[in-house]
Amino acid sequence: MVTISSPPPNSRDKAKSLVLGLQDEICAGLESLDGEGRFKEETWDRPEGGGGRSRVMQEGRIFEQGGVNFSEVHGAELPPSIVNQRPEAKGHPWFATGTSMVLHPRNPYLPTVHLNYRYFEAGPVWWFGGGADLTPFYPYLEDARHFHRVHKKACDSISPELHKVFKPWCDEYFFLKHREETRGIGGIFYDYQDGSGILYKGQNKHGKAATISTQIGAHPKNWDELFALAKACGQAFLPAYVPIIEKRQYNQFGEKEREFQLYRRGRYVEFNLVWDRGTIFGLQTNGRTESILMSLPPLVRWEYGYKPSTGSREELLTELFNKPQDWLNDSTLDSKCDQYKAID
Amino acid sequence: MVTISSPPPNSRDKAKSLVLGLQDEICAGLESLDGEGRFKEETWDRPEGGGGRSRVMQEGRIFEQGGVNFSEVHGAELPPSIVNQRPEAKGHPWFATGTSMVLHPRNPYLPTVHLNYRYFEAGPVWWFGGGADLTPFYPYLEDARHFHRVHKKACDSISPELHKVFKPWCDEYFFLKHREETRGIGGIFYDYQDGSGILYKGQNKHGKAATISTQIGAHPKNWDELFALAKACGQAFLPAYVPIIEKRQYNQFGEKEREFQLYRRGRYVEFNLVWDRGTIFGLQTNGRTESILMSLPPLVRWEYGYKPSTGSREELLTELFNKPQDWLNDSTLDSKCDQYKAID
Repeated sequence: MVTISSPPPNSRDKAKSLVLGLQDEICAGLESLDGEGRFKEETWDRPEGGGGRSRVMQEGRIFEQGGVNFSEVHGAELPPSIVNQRPEAKGHPWFATGTSMVLHPRNPYLPTVHLNYRYFEAGPVWWFGGGADLTPFYPYLEDARHFHRVHKKACDSISPELHKVFKPWCDEYFFLKHREETRGIGGIFYDYQDGSGILYKGQNKHGKAATISTQIGAHPKNWDELFALAKACGQAFLPAYVPIIEKRQYNQFGEKEREFQLYRRGRYVEFNLVWDRGTIFGLQTNGRTESILMSLPPLVRWEYGYKPSTGSREELLTELFNKPQDWLNDSTLDSKCDQYKAID
Repeated sequence: MVTISSPPPNSRDKAKSLVLGLQDEICAGLESLDGEGRFKEETWDRPEGGGGRSRVMQEGRIFEQGGVNFSEVHGAELPPSIVNQRPEAKGHPWFATGTSMVLHPRNPYLPTVHLNYRYFEAGPVWWFGGGADLTPFYPYLEDARHFHRVHKKACDSISPELHKVFKPWCDEYFFLKHREETRGIGGIFYDYQDGSGILYKGQNKHGKAATISTQIGAHPKNWDELFALAKACGQAFLPAYVPIIEKRQYNQFGEKEREFQLYRRGRYVEFNLVWDRGTIFGLQTNGRTESILMSLPPLVRWEYGYKPSTGSREELLTELFNKPQDWLNDSTLDSKCDQYKAID
């Protein structure tokens, strides 16, 4: 039996303030980046308990559509999909608060991005979860490395043991099994973090439950350290993403690039509706549909039997960037990318 | 224990010929209707056993995209999602053949339509399933009635007990719980038909398993009668759909109607990826992804918080046509529709 330390007495308020603050900081940073688009805010109540604050930007200069949600919800009992992973929570009233975000830029040279940080309490247990991942259409190796480098630094500020677990977990989670491809170039993903030393709870390649533990001392050991992790990772988002947009925002694009972007956005829809546990859980359990589906792109295309031409930049995406890669350490990626660049 | 009669010795060949013939007839009828678009055919093998024949039309005069699939597949054991409904099939090798179709016309005045007819064998059990349903964007009451009338006639040709079960089953199956709306105006849907007298196997409103049985003699009693039902319903498709297209194909439409159509197509994607058992089962069990997702529309739009204006034709769709209605018997529908028409 693993021992979980107690949260501080004001844990719910602290967690709520953290994610509310992240929503504010990120929205302000994105409005400043966009320069024209503004977030419109809607607050809502959940009949079963709690509520939220949804912010949506539409038809901005950079962002065709983007949404940043905050919610604070509570209930009598967690659903089986969560209790399976946290059996100690069974039968207890629960509390959850979090912020989640998806941004869909208009220019196909600018990557779509997702972020989510959340905190749960249920009876004797509590845990933090979250992460951020990047989905480019016309990818740049240096941008992928930048996004990962900033997130690794945030993880490292808490413990050097984290990034090597949370980076592959992100590749594993944001994977479209029916396409055999990752959603994008990944980032970080973690869940069920309670300071007990189990850093990973997922599945091995045979679909069986698997965990990764660390030696005592090499991981966040208590509530305050995990709070600090969520804060560090959440605050890493703007420095991880904004420079990429600033660098590529004036890239010229035509009909061909736009068509490819709309086609690839279809994969975003497929992932969110077929595989994303949060989306499916929300839709099947009376969540606020419009806020949940704010993650879907404004315009999407499907095309039967599409295949990118050999050596094209479109093939660069599917052959190299939509497979798990060791972006920060694999120096062979440069020459692999060059094989595609040369043709365009 | 319910007794199921034996299928004829050549049951698999007969069922396969039926659905292949339906695919041929329907494709020929649709090409003739479109006048310009032609189906392109691809045949494929399934590594685990069997294969299929996919036909896709793109950029026709009427059809922006349409696909008509045939498949004949077999395996060692059916997945739990099917065995739960047919426990007698557990542990037996199985055989399945079927045809399925989705058509997405370009003109928003022309309804999207879906059809599927299929046959299963697994050890001691066999069954037929299928149906067809219509999804208009700018709906006409007389078209909804026509579509239902033709399908009722096909059901009635086998037994007068069928349509009153298969029509509400269709409303129940093609329902988006997270939107609290039907996918369209429905049609017919049936499954697990084996002549034993259980016409319906679904869920009551509390989510519990429910069945509807008929008195002996009032239902299809054997393989041949269920084969005849599938044939009659499958052959009802062209007379149910083609006259609607012929009547509305020259309706003029503008940007507003097109935008609404693309928005409503989003609901088609949501249904297929979140709720449709066949799609989810196929994607999660190594089916042929491109053939399964042929059902998705070529171009789709999502818009946060969209609401149709009061009294508009767009509201007519969501308030009246996307709720279960007794199209053939409810004479109050005319005056209800007129309240909306008057405003446009």
